[in-house]
Amino acid sequence: MRNSSSLDSLAINLATVRQQWNLREAVEACARHGIAGLDPWRDQVSALGLAESVRVIKANGMSVTGYCRGGMFPAADAAGRQAAIDDNKRAIDEAAALEAECLVLVVGGLPQGSRDIGVARSMVADGLAAILPHARASHIPLAIEPLHPMYAGDRACVNTLCQALDLAESLGEGAGVAIDTYHVWWDPQLEEQIARAGRAKKILAYHICDWLIPTRDLLLDRGMMGDGVIDLRRIGGWIAQAGYRGRTEVEIFSKLDWWTRPGDEVLRTCIERYRAHCC
Amino acid sequence: MRNSSSLDSLAINLATVRQQWNLREAVEACARHGIAGLDPWRDQVSALGLAESVRVIKANGMSVTGYCRGGMFPAADAAGRQAAIDDNKRAIDEAAALEAECLVLVVGGLPQGSRDIGVARSMVADGLAAILPHARASHIPLAIEPLHPMYAGDRACVNTLCQALDLAESLGEGAGVAIDTYHVWWDPQLEEQIARAGRAKKILAYHICDWLIPTRDLLLDRGMMGDGVIDLRRIGGWIAQAGYRGRTEVEIFSKLDWWTRPGDEVLRTCIERYRAHCC
Repeated sequence: MRNSSSLDSLAINLATVRQQWNLREAVEACARHGIAGLDPWRDQVSALGLAESVRVIKANGMSVTGYCRGGMFPAADAAGRQAAIDDNKRAIDEAAALEAECLVLVVGGLPQGSRDIGVARSMVADGLAAILPHARASHIPLAIEPLHPMYAGDRACVNTLCQALDLAESLGEGAGVAIDTYHVWWDPQLEEQIARAGRAKKILAYHICDWLIPTRDLLLDRGMMGDGVIDLRRIGGWIAQAGYRGRTEVEIFSKLDWWTRPGDEVLRTCIERYRAHCC
Repeated sequence: MRNSSSLDSLAINLATVRQQWNLREAVEACARHGIAGLDPWRDQVSALGLAESVRVIKANGMSVTGYCRGGMFPAADAAGRQAAIDDNKRAIDEAAALEAECLVLVVGGLPQGSRDIGVARSMVADGLAAILPHARASHIPLAIEPLHPMYAGDRACVNTLCQALDLAESLGEGAGVAIDTYHVWWDPQLEEQIARAGRAKKILAYHICDWLIPTRDLLLDRGMMGDGVIDLRRIGGWIAQAGYRGRTEVEIFSKLDWWTRPGDEVLRTCIERYRAHCC
C-alpha cells in the first residue's frame, strides 16, 4: 500500500456531500482539504452547466476518477431501451469533456411489470454493446459496477463481481468494472474475482464505504469507513495486489447521518478514516 | 408440477402468522384451511411446551416440513461457540420429537467486534461438523439456508446456494440445503446451482415469498407471492425438475402488512397466491 500520510490516492465521490454543496463548492472544499480526485454526478454537473463544471474542476487541479453515472438499460419497450442508449452516449460525451477516467454504470433492474431477470440481463448486455463503440471512440472506459443483490430488482441486475467481469470480458477492450466495497464485501468469491479482474486489467475504479449493523435504509444508510463490518484494509490489499493504481474513492449515501453534518466535517472524517482503516 | 387445486404440496412456516396465533391456534387454523404441512419456530414450541406441541401437531394430522431454527455458530470466544453447539443439539432433539423433516439452519454472521467474515465462515463449518454426528444419530437432516447477502454481517455468512452446497457436500450424509426464494432469487447461478443441489439430493426444503419494490425494512418487509418481482413459477419449475418432492413452504416476515391482518385472511391469501403464482 502507498504512504498513508499522503492523500495522493484518495478521491471523493461527490454523492458523499451532495446535500451540503453544489459542484463548485464541493470542488473548492476538496481542494481546501488536499484531496485532488473526485467523481461528480450528472445532476451535479447539469446544475452548474457542463462547461463551467469543466472549468472549475480544471482550475482547482482536480482529476476526475469517474463520472456517475450511466446505465439503466432495461426498459419495457424498444423505444425505452433506445432512449437509454442515447442518454448513455450523452453521458459518455460529458465524461469526455470532464476528462473522466471512466463512466460508472449502474446497469438497471427489471423493467416495469417484469419478473424476468434473465431478460433484463440480456437488455443490459445489448445496451452495453450498443454504446461501446462510442465509448471507445471517446476514450471513456465503461466501468460496470456490480450492485449489492438487494438492488437486483430496481437498480442493477448485475450483482456479483464475477458476473460483471463475465460481461466486461465478453465486451472486450473499453469495458471494465467498478468495485465498491459496499456491494461486494460479502461475496465468498471476492478475493479470487479481484485477482481475476487484475489479471484482465479490468479494474477501472475502487469505491469504499462501510456496511452498518443495523442498516436502517436499503439505499441511504451507508457507513463511514470504520463504523461498520467491512474489512477495508484486507480488501484494499487485494485491490493493490491486483495491480490497481488508481485512486480509492469514498462514496457514502447517508441521509440519516453524514448528509446532515457540515461538509467540512465529512471530508475531514473521510481523510481520518481513510488513513486509519484503508491504508 | 403437481395439481394446482390440491394443497398436498403446500406448507406454512409459522413465522408467517406469528403475530396472530400461538402454535396451537396456528395448527388448528392450518387444519381448518386444508393445509397439512407446517414449520414451527423454537420460541413457538417453547411457549406451548414441546410435549403439547407434539400432541397438537399429531392430533391435527400435520407433517412438519422443517424446524426453525438452529445455527448462529460464530461467537467471539470458545465458550460462546460451545454454547451454540450445545443449543443446536437441543434443537435437533426437539426436531426429532416433532418428527420434523429437517432442522433449518441460519448459520450466523460476524461475532461481535469482528470484521473477519472468513473466520466467521470457518466457525460455521466447525459448528456444523460438531453437531452432524448428533443430527445423523437423530435422523434429523441439517438444512443449511443461504441467506440474502444483506444479512451477511448479522445473521448468516453463508450467502449463496453455491456456498451452502459446497458446505453441505463437504459435510456429506445428513447435510443439505434449504432454498428460500427471497434469499436466492437474484443469483445469476441460481438455475445451475438448483440443478446441482438436485443431483446431489441435497434439497431439504423449499421456502417461498416475494421481494417487494420498494423494500422498506431489511428484515420484516417480505412480500406475499405475486406482490413482488420474483418469478416464483420459474424457480419452482427448476426445483421440481431437480427432483424435489417435498412441500413448498410459505414463509413471510411482514411487520408492516401481513402480520397486521387476521390470520385466516393470511392463510386464505397464501393458498390463493400459491395456486396463482407457484404451480
